[in-house]
Amino acid sequence: MADHNDINFYTRKWVRPEDLNAHGTLFGGSLLRWIDDEAVVYAVIQLGTRQVVTKYISEINFVSSATLGDIIEIGLVATAFGRTSITMRAEVRNIISGERILTIDTMVFVSIGADGRPAPHGYHQMTRTRERLDPST
Amino acid sequence: MADHNDINFYTRKWVRPEDLNAHGTLFGGSLLRWIDDEAVVYAVIQLGTRQVVTKYISEINFVSSATLGDIIEIGLVATAFGRTSITMRAEVRNIISGERILTIDTMVFVSIGADGRPAPHGYHQMTRTRERLDPST
Amino acid sequence: MADHNDINFYTRKWVRPEDLNAHGTLFGGSLLRWIDDEAVVYAVIQLGTRQVVTKYISEINFVSSATLGDIIEIGLVATAFGRTSITMRAEVRNIISGERILTIDTMVFVSIGADGRPAPHGYHQMTRTRERLDPST
Amino acid sequence: MADHNDINFYTRKWVRPEDLNAHGTLFGGSLLRWIDDEAVVYAVIQLGTRQVVTKYISEINFVSSATLGDIIEIGLVATAFGRTSITMRAEVRNIISGERILTIDTMVFVSIGADGRPAPHGYHQMTRTRERLDPST
Amino acid sequence: MADHNDINFYTRKWVRPEDLNAHGTLFGGSLLRWIDDEAVVYAVIQLGTRQVVTKYISEINFVSSATLGDIIEIGLVATAFGRTSITMRAEVRNIISGERILTIDTMVFVSIGADGRPAPHGYHQMTRTRERLDPST
Amino acid sequence: MADHNDINFYTRKWVRPEDLNAHGTLFGGSLLRWIDDEAVVYAVIQLGTRQVVTKYISEINFVSSATLGDIIEIGLVATAFGRTSITMRAEVRNIISGERILTIDTMVFVSIGADGRPAPHGYHQMTRTRERLDPST
Repeated sequence: MADHNDINFYTRKWVRPEDLNAHGTLFGGSLLRWIDDEAVVYAVIQLGTRQVVTKYISEINFVSSATLGDIIEIGLVATAFGRTSITMRAEVRNIISGERILTIDTMVFVSIGADGRPAPHGYHQMTRTRERLDPST
Repeated sequence: MADHNDINFYTRKWVRPEDLNAHGTLFGGSLLRWIDDEAVVYAVIQLGTRQVVTKYISEINFVSSATLGDIIEIGLVATAFGRTSITMRAEVRNIISGERILTIDTMVFVSIGADGRPAPHGYHQMTRTRERLDPST
Repeated sequence: MADHNDINFYTRKWVRPEDLNAHGTLFGGSLLRWIDDEAVVYAVIQLGTRQVVTKYISEINFVSSATLGDIIEIGLVATAFGRTSITMRAEVRNIISGERILTIDTMVFVSIGADGRPAPHGYHQMTRTRERLDPST
Repeated sequence: MADHNDINFYTRKWVRPEDLNAHGTLFGGSLLRWIDDEAVVYAVIQLGTRQVVTKYISEINFVSSATLGDIIEIGLVATAFGRTSITMRAEVRNIISGERILTIDTMVFVSIGADGRPAPHGYHQMTRTRERLDPST
Repeated sequence: MADHNDINFYTRKWVRPEDLNAHGTLFGGSLLRWIDDEAVVYAVIQLGTRQVVTKYISEINFVSSATLGDIIEIGLVATAFGRTSITMRAEVRNIISGERILTIDTMVFVSIGADGRPAPHGYHQMTRTRERLDPST
Repeated sequence: MADHNDINFYTRKWVRPEDLNAHGTLFGGSLLRWIDDEAVVYAVIQLGTRQVVTKYISEINFVSSATLGDIIEIGLVATAFGRTSITMRAEVRNIISGERILTIDTMVFVSIGADGRPAPHGYHQMTRTRERLDPST
């Protein structure tokens, strides 16, 4: 549905002292939190609802890291739409070193209804606009 | 140097419970922190150095707000380059409501040398790439 | 209404590692968050309501900074009362170095009613006591 | 050395959602952290050194609590000076409800030398100024 | 009711840069917060209700500290059950140095009813299982 | 090497407002951060060095979630020792609901030497004690 070049990099993070582990490189837990945060944003825009939850994350290979003052950027692209779900591919890069930090082939988020259960979202393709967001809901 | 349409919106933030004030809208202090964070990232990419500090922020008018689960995006554009400084314009929008939250006409960041004082950065125009970042420094 | 000498310095902050930027000085975003936090407290005491929001902040000039272990103090004074608003002047000082970090001439906060809109607060002058706070509301 | 009326209340805290426990009152852990933070500031000003550590805290009785949007203030007064230590009394009040939240009769902080061990500080009485702080150290 | 050897150590914490004070040792305020957090968890499991609050903490003697990358563990044991309360003893150790950091002889937590007041919990002895937790409440 | 029953559950977390997403369930990013934090602790104890980094995480299936006031516990067991690595299995449970939240079959952490590269750790089996930790390093 989307090839690698379709990934859009939006959110950037500046590695501050609070994001470091004991030997001065980026703490893996901070990084995972940032990715999940960004993926929620992406899912909300694609599915047109604020009610989304993380359902599945495929394997994560930490190829390189980052240090104090580095800037990382997080890229996402939708790769599949299910009836109640969206599937994405993620990539994180270190802007300063130019290196890839990790990739995640498959992240699945699910749209949740008022009853707390998966709810159909009605979309079948990726949007590059925000027309699915309805301020009245 | 740059007109309004040149603003690029990168970083997006998802408003979680920890970002709310006591009556359920986005806490101004969280918002200011996010903007400063993003502006540092922008300055680092433009000036090619991790050593930058906030020097000046012009007046801020909070036009609208955001609530739990809203997504905001932060846009920046370089408007002037000084010998040791960069000047930017900032705009924050609520993606869900479609409303502008605030604009800041002038944010100035300064490049700092090893002695902790302003240092010339050598650039005169905005870049849209990362070629100014040198991993070896 | 109030001259410079009327500023009262209450809240003090100790600069810990989590407040530093990548080159070891106080992160501007942390500082802005602390100021907004303290200004909310001041507005609540002056207007006698917990429902206040940040409306306007005038230009901010970062004159000096702070480093690890420094202590800063934040001073505020009410300079004007509108029908639904309060205007303050702010000053931040580094207790250790004795230097002024920044001043903000005008910060405006607005009292909000149950409908989420500006609501009259009924006050016209600064109080130095807490008699406006009503525990029953 | 100092009686109850000598307590000075400086730092104020605004109870935001991130400070609540699961049933909507102020989380005890947040409160303890704020008190320790403020006591460090007080000890630094009194002993004229940034190198101080928490040594002892006497019993703490939680008399009342606080809820979302409440403002608390933390008061401290020096009650004794040892060769390497300072002893303080602490009191925390809820500005909104007017109630006392807790008191701590004895908090001891110790001045630490370059070798990480207790070091004499040379003071015998409380100061109300900052003349003990030397920017050059 | 329980002797020293009955203490169970569960939660472990890794000291990261954000937990340090200005001279590189574990910040007392972070430590107090972790202990209160863990004690709440213990009280919830023993009393079978999520509605518990910190009521009393006896004196705390900081015997040793921890540095960046150290791991600490927090141990708790119930020592008495009141009609609406539970009393525990706490001990914190540094796993890396093998040293005891502090002990707290008495921490009292109280069960709270729907009206916000102390409520009987109906238990008289410590459990080592989770049979008191009822998912339906 | 280890079967399912060997998993030890140590660290417990209490879900507070700051850990919730916009619809009141546990934020996936907080959960991932807690798991990585706990796995680092486990790796440090097993490999006898504070210098460990996250290298690989296998797929994660979010089976159930948690809400405000719930308590979760994180269990880990070593499943393999490489020359410079340790492999673990992780499981997270909700103590209140009794449900499993997720499992991760494979988490790999690597021991890092002074040069920032993988370094042999010299161990081949899981320890249930702390005899590998040497306070002098």
